[in-house]
Amino acid sequence: MGKFTVTFFPDEKSVDVEEGTRIAEAAQQAEVFINNLCGGEGVCGGCKVQVTAGTAEAEEHALGLLSDDEIASGYVLACQTEIHDDLDIFIPPETRMEDAQIMTGEAAAISRSEEDKPLVRKIFLELPPPTLEDNIADIERISRELRRKLGWHSYDIHLECLKGLSEKLRDSDWKVTVTVAKDRDRYRIQRIEPLDTTTRNYGVAVDVGTTTVVIQLIDIHSKEVLGVEGSHNLQASYGEDVISRMIFACGRGGLDPLHEAIIKNINQLIEKLAEKTNVLRDDINAIVAAGNTTMSHFLLGLTPCSIRLEPYVPTADEYPQVPAKDLGIRISPNGFLETIPSVASYVGGDIVAGVMSCGIADHPEVKGLIDIGTNGEIAIGNNEWLVCCSASAGPAFEGGGTRCGMRAIKGAIEKIEIANGKVNYQTIGKAPARGICGSGLIDSIHELVRNGIIGADGKFHRTLKDDRLAVEDDIPQYTIAYGEETETGEPVVITESDIDNLMKSKGAVFAAIKSLVDYIGLSFDQIDTFYVAGGFGNFLNIPKAVSIGLLPDIPREKIQFIGNSSLTGARMSLLSEGALEKCVNISRSMTNIELSNYQPFMDEYIAALFLPHTDRKLFPSVTY
Amino acid sequence: MGKFTVTFFPDEKSVDVEEGTRIAEAAQQAEVFINNLCGGEGVCGGCKVQVTAGTAEAEEHALGLLSDDEIASGYVLACQTEIHDDLDIFIPPETRMEDAQIMTGEAAAISRSEEDKPLVRKIFLELPPPTLEDNIADIERISRELRRKLGWHSYDIHLECLKGLSEKLRDSDWKVTVTVAKDRDRYRIQRIEPLDTTTRNYGVAVDVGTTTVVIQLIDIHSKEVLGVEGSHNLQASYGEDVISRMIFACGRGGLDPLHEAIIKNINQLIEKLAEKTNVLRDDINAIVAAGNTTMSHFLLGLTPCSIRLEPYVPTADEYPQVPAKDLGIRISPNGFLETIPSVASYVGGDIVAGVMSCGIADHPEVKGLIDIGTNGEIAIGNNEWLVCCSASAGPAFEGGGTRCGMRAIKGAIEKIEIANGKVNYQTIGKAPARGICGSGLIDSIHELVRNGIIGADGKFHRTLKDDRLAVEDDIPQYTIAYGEETETGEPVVITESDIDNLMKSKGAVFAAIKSLVDYIGLSFDQIDTFYVAGGFGNFLNIPKAVSIGLLPDIPREKIQFIGNSSLTGARMSLLSEGALEKCVNISRSMTNIELSNYQPFMDEYIAALFLPHTDRKLFPSVTY
Repeated sequence: MGKFTVTFFPDEKSVDVEEGTRIAEAAQQAEVFINNLCGGEGVCGGCKVQVTAGTAEAEEHALGLLSDDEIASGYVLACQTEIHDDLDIFIPPETRMEDAQIMTGEAAAISRSEEDKPLVRKIFLELPPPTLEDNIADIERISRELRRKLGWHSYDIHLECLKGLSEKLRDSDWKVTVTVAKDRDRYRIQRIEPLDTTTRNYGVAVDVGTTTVVIQLIDIHSKEVLGVEGSHNLQASYGEDVISRMIFACGRGGLDPLHEAIIKNINQLIEKLAEKTNVLRDDINAIVAAGNTTMSHFLLGLTPCSIRLEPYVPTADEYPQVPAKDLGIRISPNGFLETIPSVASYVGGDIVAGVMSCGIADHPEVKGLIDIGTNGEIAIGNNEWLVCCSASAGPAFEGGGTRCGMRAIKGAIEKIEIANGKVNYQTIGKAPARGICGSGLIDSIHELVRNGIIGADGKFHRTLKDDRLAVEDDIPQYTIAYGEETETGEPVVITESDIDNLMKSKGAVFAAIKSLVDYIGLSFDQIDTFYVAGGFGNFLNIPKAVSIGLLPDIPREKIQFIGNSSLTGARMSLLSEGALEKCVNISRSMTNIELSNYQPFMDEYIAALFLPHTDRKLFPSVTY
Repeated sequence: MGKFTVTFFPDEKSVDVEEGTRIAEAAQQAEVFINNLCGGEGVCGGCKVQVTAGTAEAEEHALGLLSDDEIASGYVLACQTEIHDDLDIFIPPETRMEDAQIMTGEAAAISRSEEDKPLVRKIFLELPPPTLEDNIADIERISRELRRKLGWHSYDIHLECLKGLSEKLRDSDWKVTVTVAKDRDRYRIQRIEPLDTTTRNYGVAVDVGTTTVVIQLIDIHSKEVLGVEGSHNLQASYGEDVISRMIFACGRGGLDPLHEAIIKNINQLIEKLAEKTNVLRDDINAIVAAGNTTMSHFLLGLTPCSIRLEPYVPTADEYPQVPAKDLGIRISPNGFLETIPSVASYVGGDIVAGVMSCGIADHPEVKGLIDIGTNGEIAIGNNEWLVCCSASAGPAFEGGGTRCGMRAIKGAIEKIEIANGKVNYQTIGKAPARGICGSGLIDSIHELVRNGIIGADGKFHRTLKDDRLAVEDDIPQYTIAYGEETETGEPVVITESDIDNLMKSKGAVFAAIKSLVDYIGLSFDQIDTFYVAGGFGNFLNIPKAVSIGLLPDIPREKIQFIGNSSLTGARMSLLSEGALEKCVNISRSMTNIELSNYQPFMDEYIAALFLPHTDRKLFPSVTY
């Protein structure tokens, strides 16, 4: 197998990859980010790219997503096309992330479930009609045939499924489709339909994020992702972060508005996707949701009030499977919601789903997951043990708490390079700049230190001669984009107190990682891989994140940005009862280290408030 | 232990019993029937009798049910008082069966459950408050404590129980009462209440009969029967028997009126009993119902349409545990209904409950249960095998299909003796005669043959000189009560076609018993005991039932009339998860022999259309 060089335009970024690598993976390695709406399933057509030099052939089944003109011009789907030649690839504007596509990405490499037993299965049965010699009850006739086909032994039955069953069987000449759902260690017959409807079996995976709610509509029969939609969490009007929403819910506001907001989010997104894909909501049989512990409580209508205060106790870590209609979620009347279990108040089902999706608990190698948002959650372990912790990182990486910070949406500056007093930046959607998102802030700190504009303590060298450097109200600030370049006419700047906030955030995340690695008695080089997930849109410059001291300084190939691993885990759990079982086992076996009064964490935090760190030995590869 | 003679007045019936036998049991053996409303629990006071000679002492705890005058006059409760002397006992009118007390009796001997795990248990927990070192989720804290107390391993949880749990625990200082319910092989937390409410745990046992619905309200904590109520099945307005109700439900009438009628029955009876006993309906946590397969279907709202027609297939034999509120039954909002499983279309949960309550499946001795109503159902077996069958007996024994037949209520002639052209009869409640109930009809046939008024073929000797014998429209008839003796002024008669119907009924029941005994390759003398249950009120003259050929001619002590064994079985299943498990096992393991096209049954039926039988060798003890 040879190696080939792929160069992406207009960025002109090159990367060397093994033969057979897909273009999307090469782009990821080159840190060129492209749409990955369907998670690499080749169904959304969102990752169209143009091959301008070299030969690459579009997968046959992807051709339906490309016009004749596009095929003639060398367009292929990046997620489906393998590399067997040196290539030049142009990424058209529409393949870049757009506003509506926030946080929907997943790493293609881990998005496929190998299991073949979805959480809800449809089984077509042709039953032998009863005779005097064989006149067992109708439902027993169905169970008997299910046992013959599936080898299971006992089925719970919804009373609703028994109502009218007698007529249904006889009217459909004993040919029916049975929907069988898994609920922990039991199987339940949840629906019986006349004739063969096995191809109409859909499910929804939901990532209930504090900031954004993302759903995927999945054809369970074909295991294809039919579409993805995201929207801002409607709870935002009751508070920007989980803490303020908890205060609202536990004060005069009450729980209901927050519960109803998230149900509305989910209903709106399902309606939108169902319409787009011509799927009947009545054929959606299951929803699997992953979210942090507070979001899971809001989703199910459980009080989160004791989560917020020491000793941080949730109502539940494992949640019952609930009829969707009991929550007002509009899918099939017999459909249900399964919520991925949590570990503790600040380590939720999103982390559990993420750990499961990365396969951390499957192999003897020690691996870690770092999920960076308002909280930084870290999980480390292997197939024998799992530990985790959570640290409050503040909203800086999600665009809060900084002067010009914003979420990773259109117009956000996501990449910055500073050289010779000049600033090159790139915005999401190539739109006029509106602010800086998390990945842009990481870039900017790196660039400011590298160019000697700020020191290792995060303070500006006030005496420096630089047109972009100014002091306002005694706070130094640096202009990234001048007013004439921006949408509003206001300059986009980064201030010393912004940098201070960012240092606290990155310090908290790194201290949590370091404390956890120390706690288990390992060193960084004994960790096989760190998967990084979080609210950076589809993009994170890992070397720069290392160089500012956010991520540990280990070989680059040991750190993988995996996007929305919570959504991946939810989808895998929908498509595989084994995957959901793994989530339950992970949530039960993971040991949570409470950092809130853990002295080593405090010490690590103080030590990490430096760029990259007060202990330079921890960051040998960082050159400034 | 000595033997004592007890004579019951006004009947002047004597019986010899072992020392320590209770008066109620002695009365049963003497075939003197007395009120047994509470099933022999000593709580209803319905079985007051007066000791007029000899010494007997009322149980101390029964004294509250007797006035000082009554105690001074020698009154005791028959169900509670042991015999240690020769006694004369007078049975006052109010202790005889009255209209409202139809079919509520159970044999005291088998009405007590030995098990100590009711279907719903209340456990009081004093939980250790959470700390940073022990901050597991609230519900896990409860489960952990339950496991410590009960040694179980996994609990299902209603979402409703999790709502508001956080506040509930903290407001009640971590002292709560948890209601745990059994559902097949699982335990479910169904309610969590602040503080200690363990003494407030009630349940209801229901016998859903085609004719009568009877409920018992049970204090699960003390295992006491607090009261019993019965009423006519409100479905009667849609048809007298199951077949006509099925025709109604499956035709233009639809299922709903029949479902709603039985729910109304249950709600009315619960309301009445709850009021009488000062029990809050909100504290009733479970209902266990037993009924024939059609009644169980109506109860749960399931179509019974295929039950009626060959090959006689019900929708289900095992029924899911259903939230009571889903059926509109007004008990605790988290309460449930458990329905005793059936065996087949015409062998229902009432038979299963009866077989369980008699302990037929518990021991190696072969025993049988004969339940006589519109259908005669027979079950025979032991702890290794069980077979059953059902035969349509027609409505004769329940008072239908005969000229002056009526149900066993006030004014019904229940006992008849004919001697020297004179008729002595006794009515229920000593009221003026209104008609003849099943037990009176059995008596009358016996007496008519014994006096040579009808022949062994059931035909009247038309030439006989007897003032009571007349021929009307060429049909001979015999007057039991002249018009001047009756309530309506109309005479109560029995006609030749009445006798014809009764012979068909008794022939079908006996043919079913005989076919089943032959099928399993036994003879009658190898059957240890036959328990007889059914719609005879609280009374059946067993020797006369044998002499007309209804019951097999085996030693008298091998036949026991046990009254409403379906209700007993339902109550035992409420009070013991082991008893319910036995019901499930019985329903699964019992082999149903379909008699409808079973030739040996047809032959037996023809042979049985004679008094007592065409084969006199089968009835050696019958002297006429």
